[in-house]
Amino acid sequence: MMDSLLTPDVLEFLESGETKAIQEFCADTTPAVVAECIAALTPDKLREILLLCPREEQAEIFSFLDFEQQRLLLQQLKRREIAHILTDMAPDDRADLFKRLPEEEGEDILPALAQAEREDIRRLSSYEEGTAGAVMTSDYATLSANITAAQAIEHLRNEALDKEMIYYSYVIDRQRRLLGSVSLQDLIVAKRSETVEEIMYTDTIFTRAHDDQEDAARKIRLYDLLSIPVVDAEGALVGIITCDDAIDVITQEQTEDIEKLVAVAGSHETGVYMRTSSWKHFTNRSIWVAALAVLGLVSGLIIQGYEKILAEFTILAAFIPMLADSGGNTGCQASTLVIRALALKEISPRDALFVLVKEFRVGLLLGLLLGVIAYLRVIIFGGGSTMPPDASLALVGLSISVALCLQVITATIIGALLPFIASWFKCDPAVIASPALTTIVDITGLLIYFTTASLFLSIG
Amino acid sequence: MMDSLLTPDVLEFLESGETKAIQEFCADTTPAVVAECIAALTPDKLREILLLCPREEQAEIFSFLDFEQQRLLLQQLKRREIAHILTDMAPDDRADLFKRLPEEEGEDILPALAQAEREDIRRLSSYEEGTAGAVMTSDYATLSANITAAQAIEHLRNEALDKEMIYYSYVIDRQRRLLGSVSLQDLIVAKRSETVEEIMYTDTIFTRAHDDQEDAARKIRLYDLLSIPVVDAEGALVGIITCDDAIDVITQEQTEDIEKLVAVAGSHETGVYMRTSSWKHFTNRSIWVAALAVLGLVSGLIIQGYEKILAEFTILAAFIPMLADSGGNTGCQASTLVIRALALKEISPRDALFVLVKEFRVGLLLGLLLGVIAYLRVIIFGGGSTMPPDASLALVGLSISVALCLQVITATIIGALLPFIASWFKCDPAVIASPALTTIVDITGLLIYFTTASLFLSIG
Repeated sequence: MMDSLLTPDVLEFLESGETKAIQEFCADTTPAVVAECIAALTPDKLREILLLCPREEQAEIFSFLDFEQQRLLLQQLKRREIAHILTDMAPDDRADLFKRLPEEEGEDILPALAQAEREDIRRLSSYEEGTAGAVMTSDYATLSANITAAQAIEHLRNEALDKEMIYYSYVIDRQRRLLGSVSLQDLIVAKRSETVEEIMYTDTIFTRAHDDQEDAARKIRLYDLLSIPVVDAEGALVGIITCDDAIDVITQEQTEDIEKLVAVAGSHETGVYMRTSSWKHFTNRSIWVAALAVLGLVSGLIIQGYEKILAEFTILAAFIPMLADSGGNTGCQASTLVIRALALKEISPRDALFVLVKEFRVGLLLGLLLGVIAYLRVIIFGGGSTMPPDASLALVGLSISVALCLQVITATIIGALLPFIASWFKCDPAVIASPALTTIVDITGLLIYFTTASLFLSIG
Repeated sequence: MMDSLLTPDVLEFLESGETKAIQEFCADTTPAVVAECIAALTPDKLREILLLCPREEQAEIFSFLDFEQQRLLLQQLKRREIAHILTDMAPDDRADLFKRLPEEEGEDILPALAQAEREDIRRLSSYEEGTAGAVMTSDYATLSANITAAQAIEHLRNEALDKEMIYYSYVIDRQRRLLGSVSLQDLIVAKRSETVEEIMYTDTIFTRAHDDQEDAARKIRLYDLLSIPVVDAEGALVGIITCDDAIDVITQEQTEDIEKLVAVAGSHETGVYMRTSSWKHFTNRSIWVAALAVLGLVSGLIIQGYEKILAEFTILAAFIPMLADSGGNTGCQASTLVIRALALKEISPRDALFVLVKEFRVGLLLGLLLGVIAYLRVIIFGGGSTMPPDASLALVGLSISVALCLQVITATIIGALLPFIASWFKCDPAVIASPALTTIVDITGLLIYFTTASLFLSIG
C-alpha cells in the first residue's frame, strides 16, 4: 500500500540493478506505478527494466510512459521486442503512438507487426482528430444473442486476456449491427441457461465514429457508463470508448475551453506547460493579444475624437478604467456562464431568447448597483477635479453613472449573445475569448460614455 | 438502439398509460434512459410509471432523476415503496439525497429504513463536502487473501446483485486494512486454484477519506482506474469512489474553476444555469464586480493625481484602454495557465521560481511586441492630438511604448505569481479571478504609465 509513489528504496534497487528484486517489484506492482517509477531513467536502463517485467505487463507499462520516452525506447528495443510490446498494446494507445511518430519512424516499425495489427493501426488512425473514431479502441468483447449466460461467461473468460474491457459486452448480428449490451455483472447474476438476448438491454446508448469525441464523453458522464460503443455510418459496431479515455477527453476539452477563454492559441494539450518553450508560449499567446492591441486603436480614436470634452472635464478620464473594467467583467461573466452551459449541453442554441431575457435582467441589476457606486465615487472623491466653473458635480456624477449602467447592460447582453452566434455558425462557443470581448465592450462602452456625457453636460 | 432519446411514441404510450407497453419498455430500457424519458411527467404520473418498472431497477431509475423530482416523488410514494427504493439505492446517491433534503423531510423518511441503512446514511453524510469521504460509496466487494480464484468468483456472484462495482475487489485483513486489489478480469483469467493473494496487486492506489475529492479523481484519471479505495486515518477501508463519480467531480471542479476565473460566486454546481433565478445570478456575480468597482477608485485617484499631465498631453488618455487591456490580457493568460497547470498537478507550488523565470521571458517578448505596436500607433494616428507645441511625437510614442512594455512584463509576472501565493497560503489557486487581477494590473499599469511619461516628457 503506497501513497507517495517514488519511495527511495525502490529507486535504489532500480538503479543498482538487482535483477531479482526488480522482478519481484514489477510483478507485485500495477503497471501504471511501475511506469511512474522508471519514467526518469535513461532509455537503455528503461529497456533493461521493462524486459525484466512480467511479459504480459510490458505493453501496459510501455503505454503509461510519455510519448517522448516511448519514442526513445523504441529506438533501443530489438525488432522482436517491439513486435511483442506493440501487439499487446491497447489498440487505441498503439494507434495514438503511430499518429504521433514521425512518418519514417512509424514505417520502420510497421514491418515488425502482423498483418492484422498493421490494418488495425491504419483503420484507427484514419479518423480525424477530435472525433469519437480517433479515441476509440478495437479491443472489445462481442457476443451472439442466442448463447446462454454460462456460454457467454466462458467466451469472455477465453477472451479476457486480450481485451481491454470485458465488463460490458456488445451483442451484434452478422452485419455487426448493434442489437444490445450486457454487463458482466448481469451475466454473473443471471441463470446459467438464460440467453444473452433475454438478459441484454436493447436500447444501448451509442455514438457515431464521426461524432465529436465530446459527445461520446458526455454520454458516458450522463449515463454513468464504463464504455460506449461506436458505430459507423451503416450502424455497424467499429469500436468502443472506455471511461478512462472519456476522462482524458473531458480533461483535454476543459483545458482547451479554459485556454481559449483567455485567448491562448496552440494545441491545448493537457500537461504541457513545463515542456512548452518560452518562445512557443509567446507565439501561442501573442496572436490574439497583438490583434486586440491593434483593434484597441478604435478605442484610442474614439477618445482622441472626444479630446475637447476630456480637456474640459478631465474627471471623465478618471472613470475610463472603471467603465472598461466593469463592462469587461460583467460581459465575461455572462459569456463564460453561457459557454459553460452550452458545453455541458445544459442549454441549446435554441434557448438564446430565454437566456438573453435572463441576462438582461441580471445586467440591469448589476448596472443599477454599479451606477450607484459610480455616482457615490464622483460625489465623494470628484470634488477636486478639473471641470468648467458652471458645471454641477451632481450632473457629472449622474452622467457617469447612467453611462456605466448602460455599459454594463450592453456588455452583459453582448457577452451572452456572442457564444450563441458562434454556435449558430457551427463554431465552438468557446472561441468567444474574454480578451476579445473586453476589447469589443471597450469600444461600445466609450461610445456610450461620451455620448451620454455630451448629452448630460450639453457639450460637443 | 436509440440516439435521440425522447422518441414521440414512447412519450405517447407513457402518457396514454398502457400498462403492458410501459412494462415492456421499462424492462428493455436502461434505467438512465427510462429516467430521462419520464423526467418531465407530473409527480403522480412519475410514481405510477416507476412502480410499473421491474422492482430491481426502480432504485436506479430514481437515482437518475433530478433532486427536485426525487423530492416531489418522495412525497407521493407510500412508506413501503420509499423503504424499498432507498434500500436498493447506491449508498452514495442515497446519502447525497439525504444531505440535500430539508432536515424535517429527511427525518420523516428515516424511520422507513432498517437500522443498517440509517447508520450507513449517517456515516456517509458525516464527511465534509469536497472530501473523498463525501463522494465515496459503501457498496464495494471485499475478499480475503487466502481464498481461491474460484471461491472469489463465487463470492462475487452472490454479492453481484447488491454491489455497485464488482469489477475491482479489495483484499482486506481483519482490521479492514487494505492488503491489495484484484480485478474480476484477473480472477477470471487465473487458474481456479490460485489464491487471491497470489493474483492480487499489493500496491493498490488509494485515497484518504479526508483528502480533497479532486485528489481521488486525479488518481483515477492518471492510473486509468474504474474505482479507487478510500481509507480512514487508521488505514482501514471505508469506501470506494467509482469512475463515474470521478467524472462528476472533474466536471464540477472544472465548472468551479471556470466560474471563479470570472469571479462568479455561489455553489458552482454543474447544470444549474437555467434553474438559477436572475436575482441569484445577480448576487453571485455582483459581489466581486462591485468590490472591484470600489477598488477601481484607486485607478481613478491615480488618474486624477495626474490630471495636469493629461490636460497637457491629452493623447495619453487615448492609450489608457490599450494599457489596461494589454496588461489585463497578458496577466490573465499567465494566471490561467498557471492555475490550470497547478490544478492538474502538472506543476507544484515548489516550481514557482522556474515558472516565474519562464513567464518573465514570455512577458518580455509580449512586451516588446506590444511596445512596437503602440509606438507605431502613436506615430501613425497620434499626429492630430493635443500636446505642447515643443513636445516631440516620437518621444511621446517612446514613452508610451516603454510604459506598455513594462506594464506587460509586470502583469505577466503578477499573473503567474498570485496563484502560487494562493497555494502557499493553502488556498485554491483558482481564487485568483481574472477581474481581480485586471483591477490590480490597472493600478500598477497606471503608476508605470504616468511615471514613465513624467520622466520621458520631463513634466511633473
